[in-house]
Amino acid sequence: MEKVNLAEKLALFSEHWSPKVVGELNGQHVKLVKFKGEFVWHKHDNEDEMFFVIKGSFRMEYRDKTITLNENEFVIVPKGVEHRPVADEEVCVMLFEPATTLNTGDAESELTKHTLEHI
Amino acid sequence: MEKVNLAEKLALFSEHWSPKVVGELNGQHVKLVKFKGEFVWHKHDNEDEMFFVIKGSFRMEYRDKTITLNENEFVIVPKGVEHRPVADEEVCVMLFEPATTLNTGDAESELTKHTLEHI
Repeated sequence: MEKVNLAEKLALFSEHWSPKVVGELNGQHVKLVKFKGEFVWHKHDNEDEMFFVIKGSFRMEYRDKTITLNENEFVIVPKGVEHRPVADEEVCVMLFEPATTLNTGDAESELTKHTLEHI
Repeated sequence: MEKVNLAEKLALFSEHWSPKVVGELNGQHVKLVKFKGEFVWHKHDNEDEMFFVIKGSFRMEYRDKTITLNENEFVIVPKGVEHRPVADEEVCVMLFEPATTLNTGDAESELTKHTLEHI
């Protein structure tokens, strides 16, 4: 019931590809994450995933096309669809997805975050 | 898988208190709504509800306190909690909530939207 200020939360961390939980509702997590560089190709077998750009821009690569997302734009990646976020410069993104979602989906790697920090 | 630009969607409607669906994932709706004035007191017995301010500001009144939400701030109102949004000036808000959510919750009135437009 208390408000959350995104700028204040974003100031609390600097690492890339490490989503932080800033809200939870109806079994869904609201997360903040900073991207820079290329992530791993992956998909989520059971979860649709929403990416909303707070600051900056990035490309969402699919196997057959790429879309560029700018501030105040979002995309929903349906379950089962392979994707890879790529950011030339740092971008701040809000994620909305089920609390069960693993950041790297089916592509476990050194980037996988099995535990999530709540900030 | 296509991106959604919030400014473009917000330009498509002008009425207040009439949420438009702009995305759906995991049984949840992403909606845009414009508020101005006072809404009705209500609660949602089964749904938590998230309000994210895109442009402007508004007050969320609870029975025992009021919080002011500005741009890039959000609040999650848990199920069962009575609330009333109030906006002195027009504000643009993004909502995240289950697709089952009725805008006026348990307080059916002339403001109730039984059908939702997808834009």
